Amino acid sequence: MDTADCARLIRNGDRRALARAITLVESARPDHRAQALALLGALREPRREALRIGLSGTPGVGKSTFIETFGLMLTGQGLKVAVLAVDPSSARSGGSILGDKTRMERLSRDPRAFIRPSPSQSQLGGVARRTREAVALCEAAGFDVVLIETVGVGQSETVVAELSDLFLLLLAPAGGDELQGVKRGIMEMADLILVNKADGDLKPAALRTVADYAGALQLLRRRPQDPPGFPKALPVSALADDGLDAAWEAMQTLVAWRKEHGHWDRTRAAQARHWFEEEVRQGLLAALSREPQKGLMASLGDRVAEGALTPEVAAAEMLRLLGR
Amino acid sequence: MDTADCARLIRNGDRRALARAITLVESARPDHRAQALALLGALREPRREALRIGLSGTPGVGKSTFIETFGLMLTGQGLKVAVLAVDPSSARSGGSILGDKTRMERLSRDPRAFIRPSPSQSQLGGVARRTREAVALCEAAGFDVVLIETVGVGQSETVVAELSDLFLLLLAPAGGDELQGVKRGIMEMADLILVNKADGDLKPAALRTVADYAGALQLLRRRPQDPPGFPKALPVSALADDGLDAAWEAMQTLVAWRKEHGHWDRTRAAQARHWFEEEVRQGLLAALSREPQKGLMASLGDRVAEGALTPEVAAAEMLRLLGR
Repeated sequence: MDTADCARLIRNGDRRALARAITLVESARPDHRAQALALLGALREPRREALRIGLSGTPGVGKSTFIETFGLMLTGQGLKVAVLAVDPSSARSGGSILGDKTRMERLSRDPRAFIRPSPSQSQLGGVARRTREAVALCEAAGFDVVLIETVGVGQSETVVAELSDLFLLLLAPAGGDELQGVKRGIMEMADLILVNKADGDLKPAALRTVADYAGALQLLRRRPQDPPGFPKALPVSALADDGLDAAWEAMQTLVAWRKEHGHWDRTRAAQARHWFEEEVRQGLLAALSREPQKGLMASLGDRVAEGALTPEVAAAEMLRLLGR
Repeated sequence: MDTADCARLIRNGDRRALARAITLVESARPDHRAQALALLGALREPRREALRIGLSGTPGVGKSTFIETFGLMLTGQGLKVAVLAVDPSSARSGGSILGDKTRMERLSRDPRAFIRPSPSQSQLGGVARRTREAVALCEAAGFDVVLIETVGVGQSETVVAELSDLFLLLLAPAGGDELQGVKRGIMEMADLILVNKADGDLKPAALRTVADYAGALQLLRRRPQDPPGFPKALPVSALADDGLDAAWEAMQTLVAWRKEHGHWDRTRAAQARHWFEEEVRQGLLAALSREPQKGLMASLGDRVAEGALTPEVAAAEMLRLLGR
């Protein structure tokens, strides 16, 4: 199928065309890459914009249940919802243990929802570009909300935060009165902390955890992109479908404020610039893995390993050969 | 002073010349950089080799006390000991809260010891190169053991492990029967886990922690560079000077085995190659911050931020301009 046909089908919301296009941007083959760039170019105008929501949470906090319940709430309001997963761990295991569609059975059968299982065998550098392009495809296909999920391994939160308009951190109720081992850097990225499982026996613990995080968030410096009272912590129960409406309301408040005060456009512009710079950096480094640079690196590296050259002297020589 | 004089003084173990040379390799000024490279070149042959020991541990585990007691034990055996610190956190605070010499008062007065406080205002990329060069200067000055300490913030353990012949992880006794929040990646780097504060009331907890970690280490895949029984966990008390002799014996066993089986040379060769490749990568990326590349990045970045170009298309254009 040619690019124009494929672009038209995606614009019309054809799910199979969208799925095929995501497979195309996931491919590392040069001819696929060229087709993918042509397709993304064809889909740029007229521009459609979704609300991109990043969601992070360690395994066991009920992320799948949250996405299912939250997604069904949004589709119930007539919104179209896409779910993408950024899962660097699947690079090792060769795919999620349970497919994402199995994890979210009801949502996956919803005609207004589109769930894309995480691809296997990927590198983090590639994950960012691929996910960014999959988000662009979902926006072109007319989705209103794109949920980008990460299991929070290594640098994946940073990648997801740089792709998102909103960043949610999903937590489980803590056992004691101590804050969970949430890294400060991740807390600083969160626009909303949602403490899940606020139901049944765990409800008191969940409310206590919310209070703990509310206190911790107050200690963080206020960011320019936040209205008063944000970032905030809220209790939710994905299982009992409780509190998700309040969470969605908070998200909409945040979005409206940011759009009104220019932060929405500024953030999107800064994110685009970030990904441009990152692509240039990756491209520069990738050149070292191609001949003839690869061979030069190997032979100079051999001389360093033998002790004939210091790392600094050999690096200066390599940079000279590269014209730097 | 010219390079030859300075090199001669360092070879003779002149501490002021060594301190000045480390200040020189810490400097970012181009003329200092040229002098530093000349000095390092002059000191390459005849080669002297120290045992490089990396030491990681979060604040509060008693790292300074350990270094002081361990260092004094080694100098008491007639060995010359240098202590270097890799502290990326000082980049923010502008230096350690307490100077390193204050932290190790007795060791700093020992004529066989040399303690170098961590420099302030540094970037992690620069930290690696600077520390590597400081280690080379200490080796040339005839030190037998170079201890490289890190507080374990972010990527600094990886940097220190790639600079070291041995990597020690210092821990405090755990409160419960759970393993402390030690990241798996750091445990996999450790050759020896030392549980400090194995004295007084904490001794039972320390021994329990040793047993927990011994169990956890057995679950890790054995690495080719380890003799049977390694990596291992041992209790120590830096305060009571207890168990440090056993820890030192374990280190020597490990070193002897690795030298005998060729791992020592192979590891050093691989480390040198790693630093060469890292220097090339840093050098390539640094070019983006210099004119005319910097200006091109900014103007293409502006067009991406405005939405006139996608990040991918702009990056491809930039790489074309760079001849990549």
